[in-house]
Amino acid sequence: MDEKGIRKLLGRLRRGDADVEEVVGALKGAPYEELGGFATLDHHRMLRVGMPEVVFAERKTAAQVAAIARNLAARGPLLVTRLDAGKAAPARRAVRGARYDPVSRTLSRGRMELPVRGPVAICCAGTSDIPVCEEAAVTLEVMGVPAIRVYDVGVAGLHRLLARRGELDRAVVVIVAAGMEGALPSVVGGLVGKPIIGLPTSVGYGASLGGIAPLLTMLNSCAPNVTVVNIDNGFGAGFVAGLIARK
Amino acid sequence: MDEKGIRKLLGRLRRGDADVEEVVGALKGAPYEELGGFATLDHHRMLRVGMPEVVFAERKTAAQVAAIARNLAARGPLLVTRLDAGKAAPARRAVRGARYDPVSRTLSRGRMELPVRGPVAICCAGTSDIPVCEEAAVTLEVMGVPAIRVYDVGVAGLHRLLARRGELDRAVVVIVAAGMEGALPSVVGGLVGKPIIGLPTSVGYGASLGGIAPLLTMLNSCAPNVTVVNIDNGFGAGFVAGLIARK
Amino acid sequence: MDEKGIRKLLGRLRRGDADVEEVVGALKGAPYEELGGFATLDHHRMLRVGMPEVVFAERKTAAQVAAIARNLAARGPLLVTRLDAGKAAPARRAVRGARYDPVSRTLSRGRMELPVRGPVAICCAGTSDIPVCEEAAVTLEVMGVPAIRVYDVGVAGLHRLLARRGELDRAVVVIVAAGMEGALPSVVGGLVGKPIIGLPTSVGYGASLGGIAPLLTMLNSCAPNVTVVNIDNGFGAGFVAGLIARK
Amino acid sequence: MDEKGIRKLLGRLRRGDADVEEVVGALKGAPYEELGGFATLDHHRMLRVGMPEVVFAERKTAAQVAAIARNLAARGPLLVTRLDAGKAAPARRAVRGARYDPVSRTLSRGRMELPVRGPVAICCAGTSDIPVCEEAAVTLEVMGVPAIRVYDVGVAGLHRLLARRGELDRAVVVIVAAGMEGALPSVVGGLVGKPIIGLPTSVGYGASLGGIAPLLTMLNSCAPNVTVVNIDNGFGAGFVAGLIARK
Amino acid sequence: MDEKGIRKLLGRLRRGDADVEEVVGALKGAPYEELGGFATLDHHRMLRVGMPEVVFAERKTAAQVAAIARNLAARGPLLVTRLDAGKAAPARRAVRGARYDPVSRTLSRGRMELPVRGPVAICCAGTSDIPVCEEAAVTLEVMGVPAIRVYDVGVAGLHRLLARRGELDRAVVVIVAAGMEGALPSVVGGLVGKPIIGLPTSVGYGASLGGIAPLLTMLNSCAPNVTVVNIDNGFGAGFVAGLIARK
Amino acid sequence: MDEKGIRKLLGRLRRGDADVEEVVGALKGAPYEELGGFATLDHHRMLRVGMPEVVFAERKTAAQVAAIARNLAARGPLLVTRLDAGKAAPARRAVRGARYDPVSRTLSRGRMELPVRGPVAICCAGTSDIPVCEEAAVTLEVMGVPAIRVYDVGVAGLHRLLARRGELDRAVVVIVAAGMEGALPSVVGGLVGKPIIGLPTSVGYGASLGGIAPLLTMLNSCAPNVTVVNIDNGFGAGFVAGLIARK
Amino acid sequence: MDEKGIRKLLGRLRRGDADVEEVVGALKGAPYEELGGFATLDHHRMLRVGMPEVVFAERKTAAQVAAIARNLAARGPLLVTRLDAGKAAPARRAVRGARYDPVSRTLSRGRMELPVRGPVAICCAGTSDIPVCEEAAVTLEVMGVPAIRVYDVGVAGLHRLLARRGELDRAVVVIVAAGMEGALPSVVGGLVGKPIIGLPTSVGYGASLGGIAPLLTMLNSCAPNVTVVNIDNGFGAGFVAGLIARK
Amino acid sequence: MDEKGIRKLLGRLRRGDADVEEVVGALKGAPYEELGGFATLDHHRMLRVGMPEVVFAERKTAAQVAAIARNLAARGPLLVTRLDAGKAAPARRAVRGARYDPVSRTLSRGRMELPVRGPVAICCAGTSDIPVCEEAAVTLEVMGVPAIRVYDVGVAGLHRLLARRGELDRAVVVIVAAGMEGALPSVVGGLVGKPIIGLPTSVGYGASLGGIAPLLTMLNSCAPNVTVVNIDNGFGAGFVAGLIARK
Repeated sequence: MDEKGIRKLLGRLRRGDADVEEVVGALKGAPYEELGGFATLDHHRMLRVGMPEVVFAERKTAAQVAAIARNLAARGPLLVTRLDAGKAAPARRAVRGARYDPVSRTLSRGRMELPVRGPVAICCAGTSDIPVCEEAAVTLEVMGVPAIRVYDVGVAGLHRLLARRGELDRAVVVIVAAGMEGALPSVVGGLVGKPIIGLPTSVGYGASLGGIAPLLTMLNSCAPNVTVVNIDNGFGAGFVAGLIARK
Repeated sequence: MDEKGIRKLLGRLRRGDADVEEVVGALKGAPYEELGGFATLDHHRMLRVGMPEVVFAERKTAAQVAAIARNLAARGPLLVTRLDAGKAAPARRAVRGARYDPVSRTLSRGRMELPVRGPVAICCAGTSDIPVCEEAAVTLEVMGVPAIRVYDVGVAGLHRLLARRGELDRAVVVIVAAGMEGALPSVVGGLVGKPIIGLPTSVGYGASLGGIAPLLTMLNSCAPNVTVVNIDNGFGAGFVAGLIARK
Repeated sequence: MDEKGIRKLLGRLRRGDADVEEVVGALKGAPYEELGGFATLDHHRMLRVGMPEVVFAERKTAAQVAAIARNLAARGPLLVTRLDAGKAAPARRAVRGARYDPVSRTLSRGRMELPVRGPVAICCAGTSDIPVCEEAAVTLEVMGVPAIRVYDVGVAGLHRLLARRGELDRAVVVIVAAGMEGALPSVVGGLVGKPIIGLPTSVGYGASLGGIAPLLTMLNSCAPNVTVVNIDNGFGAGFVAGLIARK
Repeated sequence: MDEKGIRKLLGRLRRGDADVEEVVGALKGAPYEELGGFATLDHHRMLRVGMPEVVFAERKTAAQVAAIARNLAARGPLLVTRLDAGKAAPARRAVRGARYDPVSRTLSRGRMELPVRGPVAICCAGTSDIPVCEEAAVTLEVMGVPAIRVYDVGVAGLHRLLARRGELDRAVVVIVAAGMEGALPSVVGGLVGKPIIGLPTSVGYGASLGGIAPLLTMLNSCAPNVTVVNIDNGFGAGFVAGLIARK
Repeated sequence: MDEKGIRKLLGRLRRGDADVEEVVGALKGAPYEELGGFATLDHHRMLRVGMPEVVFAERKTAAQVAAIARNLAARGPLLVTRLDAGKAAPARRAVRGARYDPVSRTLSRGRMELPVRGPVAICCAGTSDIPVCEEAAVTLEVMGVPAIRVYDVGVAGLHRLLARRGELDRAVVVIVAAGMEGALPSVVGGLVGKPIIGLPTSVGYGASLGGIAPLLTMLNSCAPNVTVVNIDNGFGAGFVAGLIARK
Repeated sequence: MDEKGIRKLLGRLRRGDADVEEVVGALKGAPYEELGGFATLDHHRMLRVGMPEVVFAERKTAAQVAAIARNLAARGPLLVTRLDAGKAAPARRAVRGARYDPVSRTLSRGRMELPVRGPVAICCAGTSDIPVCEEAAVTLEVMGVPAIRVYDVGVAGLHRLLARRGELDRAVVVIVAAGMEGALPSVVGGLVGKPIIGLPTSVGYGASLGGIAPLLTMLNSCAPNVTVVNIDNGFGAGFVAGLIARK
Repeated sequence: MDEKGIRKLLGRLRRGDADVEEVVGALKGAPYEELGGFATLDHHRMLRVGMPEVVFAERKTAAQVAAIARNLAARGPLLVTRLDAGKAAPARRAVRGARYDPVSRTLSRGRMELPVRGPVAICCAGTSDIPVCEEAAVTLEVMGVPAIRVYDVGVAGLHRLLARRGELDRAVVVIVAAGMEGALPSVVGGLVGKPIIGLPTSVGYGASLGGIAPLLTMLNSCAPNVTVVNIDNGFGAGFVAGLIARK
Repeated sequence: MDEKGIRKLLGRLRRGDADVEEVVGALKGAPYEELGGFATLDHHRMLRVGMPEVVFAERKTAAQVAAIARNLAARGPLLVTRLDAGKAAPARRAVRGARYDPVSRTLSRGRMELPVRGPVAICCAGTSDIPVCEEAAVTLEVMGVPAIRVYDVGVAGLHRLLARRGELDRAVVVIVAAGMEGALPSVVGGLVGKPIIGLPTSVGYGASLGGIAPLLTMLNSCAPNVTVVNIDNGFGAGFVAGLIARK
């Protein structure tokens, strides 16, 4: 129940068309409606802030994904993440025009139309980190935020990063993905005076502990402009970067 | 050697006042100077992006802190963090007009004058998290970014948070500090479509593992607009928030 | 040897039909029988408290499961958990009328008939948590306790939870399953003044550490009415909830 | 604004003593009050479910504790936990009739008057666990729930536990505290068909990892009627037990 | 109630001096006495197997320790462990003839008189491990088992260990304490064909993780005759070694 | 060079057939031979203490296992552990009379003939722990030590354990395997005054952390007669038990 | 831009063929080129220090590996690591004369020609560690450094190690691989006064935690000449050893 | 028994002053002496490789340290590490001419005289890491190896590091200390083609986990010339660097 509904109800009460009990009863339910408004925690808020509800396809069946995707695509732009190629076909058929990208394992269609301050740069050290970066890139695409890909510029190729510093300087915010030791965000954080989103990846072996090592590295970064998202969470990195890039 | 110096040198070469060998020799040293420019990793970059070098006082003696603070304060705004009250006196004497705040354990003076898009909101659950929040607040103050304090609005007092939602809506970015279970950033992340900086604190006991539990909670947040900084890292949260708030 | 047997034996002694040695000998064995009574740790106690011994099928062969299930089903209600579909057939054939549920991976038949105070509500955030919840639901079914399913009401859909608050209010105790950040039990714990059983699930990735992150979140819950069971332990959550719901 | 206040306001509207704008304005604030009602996460809910807001004194100053305690004690029963003896004096002076217990480190006054189904038993292995148990006991006392103390009955004294089994059988729910290996909840869980609340304590050394070892033991309990709270969380254990014991 | 008591009671029943009800009532209590016998988990069993109940003084007050020590010393040999020098005086006064050893932090008096197969050797790498070893040595002394101290024979002094191999060969079982890397038990395990009890100590720093590193080393020992006790658990190591050394 | 060789050499020196230089040179090499004697770390020592070198088949090819097994079987009793059924055939063919046991995944032939003090009891909680126990049992068999199997007597069936207490009392040492919470060794340790070898298994899920939880439980056992081996290390448990059981 | 380019440019300026603006513009880009020189972090530096860029084939497709290998092989010696046999064929075809080694999973061709001080010894305990050692050996081969393989000399065969001590003494540096308890590097570190590179392997089970246990052992080594590389990092161990062995 | 003693004994045998039995008996003891030679694990080896036994003063009393220091100083150069200022006086008095350095907490006197290939560079990020670096520097001093201190050149001051690259290039091996994120060794490893010894320090807070975070970073370094020592192990880093620097 929104304000309009409440006014209407109170008008009825005032006119004698409703009695106190009825209004109290309705208002008792109202908080749920108000809280429906409160459910800014929900996809409603998502839509309002320029991002439709996103489908996390892991542990869902191909049929479930297809059903949800069709439903959401009817309401606006669509983004499905962590969708294995083997499960993508039904959803692709369900949503005409949807594009499945096997690298980022995303299915998407459409894009938000909101004003942005500038592009987001996405850096990573090596080719193994690219799938996670592409998940961020597709997320930005759906948010209508331009992405600058600066791939394969790890500490073992820093001159290439430096050679592309102009692109970093154009960005409003920089996503930096790294596995193994995870030192790249600190280095980039020292190069550009922008917010850096550290994106640890599970690339590595042994003492990288499935991404815990780069995660800790980034959390302890001596470059104070680095914040961190979960391991392999390309979507989250892309989404926050998109929010920062918006006007 | 800065651009001005290079121009002067090249002018001398052109005029025949210097020969190629001399210029090559000078330029050979230049990269270090250029790299001094490259040292965007360094406080030079800091100053350029609107934040002077910050002193982390832990493990430094009172005399060391005072000496560094005097040196830095001569160049611009000053911020010293993690400065125990017992070590603050020499630095306060060394920097006329510096303000020591015992809650955030910071010493500061002056502020940046850079255009900002809007204020930063700082939320926390309870009184125990306030010192960490105040470190963020003082950092923002030195950066010249207005801060909105929304304290004592933990999950056990969410209505107070909701009552102050207007203030959250005015903010460009929201810092959310929480210890124990660390669920507050997710809740705030669901309420406002802004970037949220999760700031885990070491408040708690037992299975909170000195802040590891809220850190993990925030990294796994189902609200995708949450990024995370190190445990008790109020300065880092404030600094990134300030960068995001800038134009 | 139960009390009846002891009385009989003592009567024989009194009547002179048995001598002291014989009775001492029999009583010497009795503790084991008494301890059989003591073995309230065992399925005997289980049966008495209204729950037959439950079969944990993991690491057992299909043939072993079938044999045990047939034996137990002859004595009362049957519950087999963690039974993969591929191993279920022999047990289904062994126990006429048994129902295999592929979602919860349970095989069950019959139900306890004991008085209950009211239903148990089972909440979860998303569809991925449903199998664990259904294990709890089937457990309650066998215990003869009604279950109210409140699924898909995670923090990203809290309004739906609130819309169904009446159902939560009807419950005597609430099971709340959550993976990833595991914040839902705290939120539900703040909404209803009932005992909450936090049920962490292994749904998530990266820093969720296979369920350790939501487990820690729940253990550190700022809502003091939350207790916690093992990761993915739907049976345990259901069983404790059933005990609380009983008169 | 509670239901009574809303009825009064609506009556005024109906009688023409208030107009729609005024009522809308008042109700607009109401959601916050309603959300105060929603803030079942908050002490309002606490009071309704029979437990006033509880003060966690750790990291608060003696003066803060005294101020909060005075405020709360004016509204109902008072419970302050984790209050070191050295900080207790101001709060004791602030609340006439408050009792400070140095063992449990609690300050309390008054008690709830709500119907209960029966007492709560509190068991522990050794004298080192008693402070944590007493925190649970004082919590139950404030909740108006009788507590049966069954202390010093660890695995190294199980016969004493068994000798007092009648007391356990009288309880509606049993709290079992244990440090070191934490096996006692499983043993008690096997003896009595009641909900068991495992309360791991930080008593131990070396590989007990500050309570992590007994916590893991309890989470993996083979007795399925065991749920677990945080390490040393006597208040939480007492609170949940009190909720379960209520009618 | 012991066997003698049962015979007496049955005699009375047989003679008609007691009726069945009385005997059943008495026997109903008996299991607890029998379980007192069952409480082999308890100090009764301890005494029977040649070891009195041992007092773990940590977290107990000096007065509590003194009271318990006086009580136990009246029944047999006495052993108090982890007793800081500052708390020892009252217990020393309470037990005439008790010896306090500040190195092992034990208070002891008397010794068991049971046949043994041979001595126990106690090895350690360096002087820092000696306090833990002495706790084992005093335990063995109270058990009446001779101890051979082979101290300061770490990997950095292996020739000294080898020089004393004859002593190791005379031992029935060898306790090997080590901190840091914890490799000594494996080396000793390879030298002598005896059961080795690995006793990890918290001696070390950094990645020794308070004794976790040597604990893991010993658990993974490639010498298959190594078993392990808790970190710094000299009493446990001594007690098990004493049991193995007994006939 | 063995003692015989040295005598021969010294005889030559004495007879003047060798000079001092030659003997010194030979003796300088001797330590390696002596150290061959020193290599009590090696299978030579193994054989002497009554246990041949044991083959750990994991990560070895079927052909490698067969070659090693043939070689060892020519020298004495044979034991191969962790040999998957799929790799066993070549080794079975290579060693006439070898017995492959699919439960314990061992291949064995022959047995030591050394005097023993009595049997070893092997307990476990459930059927899932049996393979690990059987590895211990086969190890004992090869060592010529009788084993008493007391399986399926977990905390959820303690009366069965108690019913078989006589068998435990006959044992010289008891191996107790347990997964999940790992409490069984403490319980058995309280029942019998014998050395207990705790054998944690990886049976369990979630917070059992692949056997870490029962491992910690056993290390923190309040029964002081418990020592611990590595997770699933049935061979190690059996070997140490066999050593203890020997005269 | 290298020094030659700069000289040419300055010559043009001096001759009036370029003006200051043009040169400043060119030099502004120069730092990137200089930084290309700075990118000693990169394969350029690698080549200069005598090691071409190495391809880590994990997570790369067979086609990607082949393309990169062909490119690199055109510039100098080639080393591809972690290349599964199933992915090796395209790269083998792409690089004529390349050798694929299925044990170390490496593809290599050619070798550096730089002066070395002496050979590198590679030790390991058992056959399971050989693949990791061979990765180090092939790395050394490509670096042009002779390797001495001292395999199968674990603590359970130390006399064989001692017998080959002469080979260890000839080495400039010793790589010591070990899984399980990881004690071998300490033992070797005590035998030879050379730098020891501890190479923990994931060989083991249970509490070896995938190599964490030997890693911790080596980090806590009481032999102070031990440094450590990542778990299973044969390439890294070989590379550092090769650098140390160079003149 | 050393070689001289053996020659003397053999001379007696040859002259008929001793018989074979006597010599065999003496030689039977000899291996221990030979093993004293074997005890290259011991300080004898240390001395031979140019490093006397080093005293780790932690957990030793001032008197113990003084006694050991006096004894060792009589035999050669002296190095005592981890010696708190409060415990240093007796040792200083005991060893004439010893120098106590409060920064590195070392006591030392004298130096080895062995040929070296060149100096060792010691880098660190900030002033907090200096004490650990100085422990390495003093170790090198005692080894007679020149040290180049390159302090305060962390990622936040990389240009200073680059400005001093000539010094790094002169070094044979580089020690790089870092706390917090620990990225500096990778950066230095990319700059210079030398062996890098990563020295993680416990400088940091929160998720640096007492040095575990930089330790993991260094173990996962993408610069393959990095090996790692224990947290805060300045002595170990210095010792290995000294060995590498020797001819």
